[in-house]
Amino acid sequence: MKLFLAATLSVMAFTGFAAEQPKNIIMVVGDGMGPAYTTAYRYFADDRASAEIDWTVFDRHLKGMASTYPARVSGYVTDSAAGATALSSATKSYNGAIAVDVEKAPTPTVLEWAKQRGMKTGVAVTSQVNHATPASYAAHNEYRRNYDEIADSYFDDRVGEAFVLDVILGGGWEYFIREDRNLVEEFKAAGYQYVDDMAALSTLTPGKPVLGLFADTGMPWALDTPTKQRLPALTKAAVKQLENDNGFFLLVEGSQVDWAGHANDVASAMAEMHDLAMTLEYLESYVKQNPDTLVVVTADHSTGGFTIAANKDYRWEPDWLKNLKMSVESLAKALVKSDTPVAFIEENLGFALNEQEKATVNALQEADEKTWFKTVSHILDVRSNTGWTTSGHTAVDVQVFAMGKGSEVFKGHMDNTDISRHIFKMLGKTE
Amino acid sequence: MKLFLAATLSVMAFTGFAAEQPKNIIMVVGDGMGPAYTTAYRYFADDRASAEIDWTVFDRHLKGMASTYPARVSGYVTDSAAGATALSSATKSYNGAIAVDVEKAPTPTVLEWAKQRGMKTGVAVTSQVNHATPASYAAHNEYRRNYDEIADSYFDDRVGEAFVLDVILGGGWEYFIREDRNLVEEFKAAGYQYVDDMAALSTLTPGKPVLGLFADTGMPWALDTPTKQRLPALTKAAVKQLENDNGFFLLVEGSQVDWAGHANDVASAMAEMHDLAMTLEYLESYVKQNPDTLVVVTADHSTGGFTIAANKDYRWEPDWLKNLKMSVESLAKALVKSDTPVAFIEENLGFALNEQEKATVNALQEADEKTWFKTVSHILDVRSNTGWTTSGHTAVDVQVFAMGKGSEVFKGHMDNTDISRHIFKMLGKTE
Ligand SMILES: [Zn+2]
Ligand SMILES: [Zn+2]
Repeated sequence: MKLFLAATLSVMAFTGFAAEQPKNIIMVVGDGMGPAYTTAYRYFADDRASAEIDWTVFDRHLKGMASTYPARVSGYVTDSAAGATALSSATKSYNGAIAVDVEKAPTPTVLEWAKQRGMKTGVAVTSQVNHATPASYAAHNEYRRNYDEIADSYFDDRVGEAFVLDVILGGGWEYFIREDRNLVEEFKAAGYQYVDDMAALSTLTPGKPVLGLFADTGMPWALDTPTKQRLPALTKAAVKQLENDNGFFLLVEGSQVDWAGHANDVASAMAEMHDLAMTLEYLESYVKQNPDTLVVVTADHSTGGFTIAANKDYRWEPDWLKNLKMSVESLAKALVKSDTPVAFIEENLGFALNEQEKATVNALQEADEKTWFKTVSHILDVRSNTGWTTSGHTAVDVQVFAMGKGSEVFKGHMDNTDISRHIFKMLGKTE
Repeated sequence: MKLFLAATLSVMAFTGFAAEQPKNIIMVVGDGMGPAYTTAYRYFADDRASAEIDWTVFDRHLKGMASTYPARVSGYVTDSAAGATALSSATKSYNGAIAVDVEKAPTPTVLEWAKQRGMKTGVAVTSQVNHATPASYAAHNEYRRNYDEIADSYFDDRVGEAFVLDVILGGGWEYFIREDRNLVEEFKAAGYQYVDDMAALSTLTPGKPVLGLFADTGMPWALDTPTKQRLPALTKAAVKQLENDNGFFLLVEGSQVDWAGHANDVASAMAEMHDLAMTLEYLESYVKQNPDTLVVVTADHSTGGFTIAANKDYRWEPDWLKNLKMSVESLAKALVKSDTPVAFIEENLGFALNEQEKATVNALQEADEKTWFKTVSHILDVRSNTGWTTSGHTAVDVQVFAMGKGSEVFKGHMDNTDISRHIFKMLGKTE
């Protein structure tokens, strides 16, 4: 892709940096995070013993909302690939497209444009690093599931003479260490530091490019991580590596809000939102100390048809979701082999089951993992009174949050392509 | 209530009108209109033949979003009474409260405050005029279903020496013409014009107070109204009656978006949204000609757990909802007596049923109205791929739209009580 990118970028008009150009731009995507998720998170985070309900970090920075529909050919409901392509390259495309247009021609992205301008670039995500959202900022492919090709392109593609990404943090051993190609070794040979353990992030040499992979595909759920957080650590490490006099563009993704939505797993949905919220609280303090940085936060779409209350009952009770010792997925895996499922569930959900729940659990003999998953997540849906309508996406508009230099342009209603259009403009690109 | 109101209002500090005080304030509530409704309406209104998807009147005026939770005692999911009490009087109360606080003490409302300041006041709604939302602006009652008491209070209460409302337009014969009391005759004797036919709105004498009631309880569905609209006509008539040198406060409610949501009736949800959108387009032109007018639009909550797509299918197809000749409720009523249900449904939905739908319809022998309603609305849900999770409310944040003088203060995240707090401030009330 080297020739293509160099050519495409060189014909885009560069008119110098805008007066309001932030030095650093951090784009944060909460994959699948529709308005019900940010609202629910406020009540999940609420301390019922206090008189007031506190604003969350999302509330403090709400600027507007964005429509998410893909190109006409894909109707009104987007997938993460078309959503991220709109957010990265101001282009409406078909569902499945990774920074290519409806004709499958590559579309230049804000991350590539930043790189072309001499800024450092990075991605820090909880999915595999070559998943739809990061891929749509740093690669071009006609189909999101061409994971090996996308991983290859992180090494093979160039912006001018440079690698597209200086910092790559997330999951993905499966795609980077393959029988046919070992991209880890290739990156190392090209001068990248490589880490495969979150604890090693603190040992990185600043200023030197880095590849950090911490899981086969996506990272473990926040609920299965000792701290119940991992995105703040990835984001802090990425920012530290990227800081330089020419500024940086960083794509951060809370990837697994979407995965919890697909699974209709409200406990992980809230835990993943907490992981993302803690990341934003770190970025809030970073912007305070570095007011020349812009942080934009949005979602690509909402997932699951998640609703806060269901079944004619005017009630939502997030307290039942606050004491899980592991994810529902891990619970389900363990329950397949458990002889005392009631006790095991009670221990790990953090509350005693009622007679009806016990009867349901005891009626399951030799159930498979999927049945256990549905049983336990159903208990939490009933307890919290959570509703779902799909294991896919919905088309509801998503919120746009922004803080720091230039954040005011993101106010009011916009289309998702307007977000990248604003960023391109800040980076001196005219249409 | 005369003494109470006079006393309460007189102890509120009046510091003169703010510099940015609009002359007229029009508060519009889309009852039950969460983010999925305004998004879905964009796609319902979209002409698929055109390349672009146009912005709606909602999109043009989006300013922020509001949380809707009621007082702690009622959890996180509000009803329309507590929601409207927050919007009218900056007070969190219990579900069911009509402008009273958790101790059941009356809370002064922005409408009363406007009246006290010499402005004219009115309500124009598609529900009965004494329903929760208008009642929470113009009356005080410990329970929303005390409909007779609330109707009585519109006549019996005073702000100073004046009636609370100069213009009352909507449904409600059942509550105003009763065996024990005829409020229509009392209003007429007190100098109000009375009309009971929408066509008579054009015959009203400007400047003279008016009571207009057009239905027993709520007005017929938009889909059962020849023009498929009625709120624009009510709103235009109300504005015409209220215009005066001292300005006015008007509460407009698209009441039946909520009712369609409760019924999980996506066709009426979209038709009621269209009625409301046409009202806002009228108000948009009014503000253009009268830039000293402020229009604020929000919802009290969302209803039905409405989702745009469902069942793992990345698809929402509003075209199936565009050619109904009557509401699903009217269809169901007629189907109870129909000998040719398939033909009758096809004629009134505007499309041919497929074999599976025909089989379902033909299998229904002597079904009751409720069964027909569920059958026909289910056909539309499947065709459009619409999801629902409840026949009640959900807690998702709602959007805030505003246009005209002072509209900028409604930007970003806010609580629903902040909306009335801003309006009180514009009207010179300090806390
Ligand atoms: Zn997804
Ligand atoms: Zn309702």
